[in-house]
Amino acid sequence: MTSEALKTARDMIGEPDSRAGIPTPALVLDLDAFERNVARMAEHCRLNGLGLRPHAKTHKSVSIARAQIAAGALGVCCAKLGEAEAMAAGGIESILITSPVVTKQGLGRLVALNAKLPDLMVVVDNPENARALAAAAAEGKRKLKVLVDLDVGLHRTGIRPGEEATDLAELLDAAEYLELRGLQAYAGHLMHIHDFAERREKSLAAMKVLGEQRDALKAKGMCCDIVSGGGTGSYNIDPEANVLTELQGGSYIFMDKQYHDVALGNGASFPFETSLFVQMSVVSNNTKSLATTDAGFKSFSTDAEPPKLLSGAPEGAGYFFFGDEQGGILLPEGARLPLGSVLTAMTPHCDPTVNLYDAYHVVRGDVLVDVWPIEARGRSA
Amino acid sequence: MTSEALKTARDMIGEPDSRAGIPTPALVLDLDAFERNVARMAEHCRLNGLGLRPHAKTHKSVSIARAQIAAGALGVCCAKLGEAEAMAAGGIESILITSPVVTKQGLGRLVALNAKLPDLMVVVDNPENARALAAAAAEGKRKLKVLVDLDVGLHRTGIRPGEEATDLAELLDAAEYLELRGLQAYAGHLMHIHDFAERREKSLAAMKVLGEQRDALKAKGMCCDIVSGGGTGSYNIDPEANVLTELQGGSYIFMDKQYHDVALGNGASFPFETSLFVQMSVVSNNTKSLATTDAGFKSFSTDAEPPKLLSGAPEGAGYFFFGDEQGGILLPEGARLPLGSVLTAMTPHCDPTVNLYDAYHVVRGDVLVDVWPIEARGRSA
Repeated sequence: MTSEALKTARDMIGEPDSRAGIPTPALVLDLDAFERNVARMAEHCRLNGLGLRPHAKTHKSVSIARAQIAAGALGVCCAKLGEAEAMAAGGIESILITSPVVTKQGLGRLVALNAKLPDLMVVVDNPENARALAAAAAEGKRKLKVLVDLDVGLHRTGIRPGEEATDLAELLDAAEYLELRGLQAYAGHLMHIHDFAERREKSLAAMKVLGEQRDALKAKGMCCDIVSGGGTGSYNIDPEANVLTELQGGSYIFMDKQYHDVALGNGASFPFETSLFVQMSVVSNNTKSLATTDAGFKSFSTDAEPPKLLSGAPEGAGYFFFGDEQGGILLPEGARLPLGSVLTAMTPHCDPTVNLYDAYHVVRGDVLVDVWPIEARGRSA
Repeated sequence: MTSEALKTARDMIGEPDSRAGIPTPALVLDLDAFERNVARMAEHCRLNGLGLRPHAKTHKSVSIARAQIAAGALGVCCAKLGEAEAMAAGGIESILITSPVVTKQGLGRLVALNAKLPDLMVVVDNPENARALAAAAAEGKRKLKVLVDLDVGLHRTGIRPGEEATDLAELLDAAEYLELRGLQAYAGHLMHIHDFAERREKSLAAMKVLGEQRDALKAKGMCCDIVSGGGTGSYNIDPEANVLTELQGGSYIFMDKQYHDVALGNGASFPFETSLFVQMSVVSNNTKSLATTDAGFKSFSTDAEPPKLLSGAPEGAGYFFFGDEQGGILLPEGARLPLGSVLTAMTPHCDPTVNLYDAYHVVRGDVLVDVWPIEARGRSA
């Protein structure tokens, strides 16, 4: 997998293959831990007779999508049309777009993508959008596969379960150029509940609603071959409900601080390891018990708690945001970090952190083995 | 200035020149307001006999740097080496790097950039770094211009004023391949103080420290032709202190929500207008008094308060973050926003928000007139 980008990186570093020499701040992916995560989730789904459609919104990388598919995933989810365009350009063939596409220019791009992609699906949560999609697909003269997006409690997207959802499914089913394939639901509000018993109870309740909707569609003779949903937080709960046909987890490949904390309260097993790190360097150290690094608001997402320091600083040191470009390291009394010291932190929330970088610096142990571009970075439109 | 990117955008929109048709979420720049801001700061500096070196960390765009230089700026500041490399590649000739460059690979890149750029400067805050820079510049056999970075109270970077700073200046002055040009100080901790009298008092105190250091250098016969610093929050205070030779403001071109709030408490005049917006669309509206837009954590920085809605929603509506990909609009009782509705928000904090996008969609009124690439986006290393 040695790439042009790796050659460029090696030229820039001047010390080929050295993890410590990567220009900082950098997003570093531990390939061993990543591969174990990919394999473990694939195996989990296989053992439970469940398909796996990992969410590419987490990694935005064609290389990672390929690794997931090579391990058995059916394809990927994309949050946005632009993300799907980037994945398709990289050769990923089976894509589910998990947010509604509603704007006029969006519909045009969706139809154009559908003409190129053998296995594109998009979710729909509104009759008005269903009619617009039907018209756009008819104009493109090519069938577009759709799933009804069901609101199981998050109220972000999705149609209310019951009669409204069934009516929407009938509308989609009747459209000549739409092909109803089933349902999607995402209980994003339940994924980070720390207590496992509570997370399990609420997740199973959401799955029950989804299962009833599936039965209602089937009772009316409509196709419901695909029931897509779930996430890293419910990966070991969803199989028990026996409703999903495919699991949508994203973060399991990286295990950020948010999910790391969930795992601690998980009770049951949570076999994924932190594989993604931000590497940074000390650039100033003139103040007692303080060091300044080169990673601030532009290098870590700030929607969650601050990053957790893992290496490069003494026990008891902590990171704080020190503006757009810098981080502060508060050190134990008397401690000092030399200029150029390399520190590693766990990402606070992986998805928006990844979205700040153009590439993963991929390492095995202390060796830089590849650089993977983040093709869909910034493709939020 | 019509660009290839604009042609691509027009093809994508399908409705040439329509602001409302821009694929969302998008970063929209109001060219009229932007040009007035650029002209007003340039005029302010001219009237006060002060140079202007705007900070490119805010905009990361060669097009904007060019507009600032065309209006009279001396050049630009860059926060990081990668940003400077991107600006230099775009033809910007005079650049001050405002953070220390300390890593081995960084020093190599700095020397390489210095060989290409007629007017590159970098700050130094540490004797160890001074020696490393001197050695690297000697190896490159080309003089490198440096400023001493003085800590006037933020404690992020900078050397302590007084003897330590003077010793560092002497070290730099004595190095054969370094050329000491003067001082830099940034009082970032004072820029957003809401009360004008308090901001003025503290800013003048910081400038006094900087002025004394300048005098100490001059008394020892060292060059102090350049004293660089200040920001948007102190733009109308710094001239009074008569210490700076050049002002480093960044945010004045955009006026984000943070500085908008400062302006409200400013007392004295603050003649800059909000010119930068995030445009988003409603993608789901199934829940009463709620609409979901396509702009979340990946479309707005989250280090400050949430974005302020400006248009597209009824009075009393408010934005809240609804995850990585979406925003929620809480509507007044009974209100509803149609699917595809276009909303505009003021950016919470402009620098890290700009860093999420690949381009500015540049408008005059409701007409899309250009697309400016954000060349230094993500160049934090």
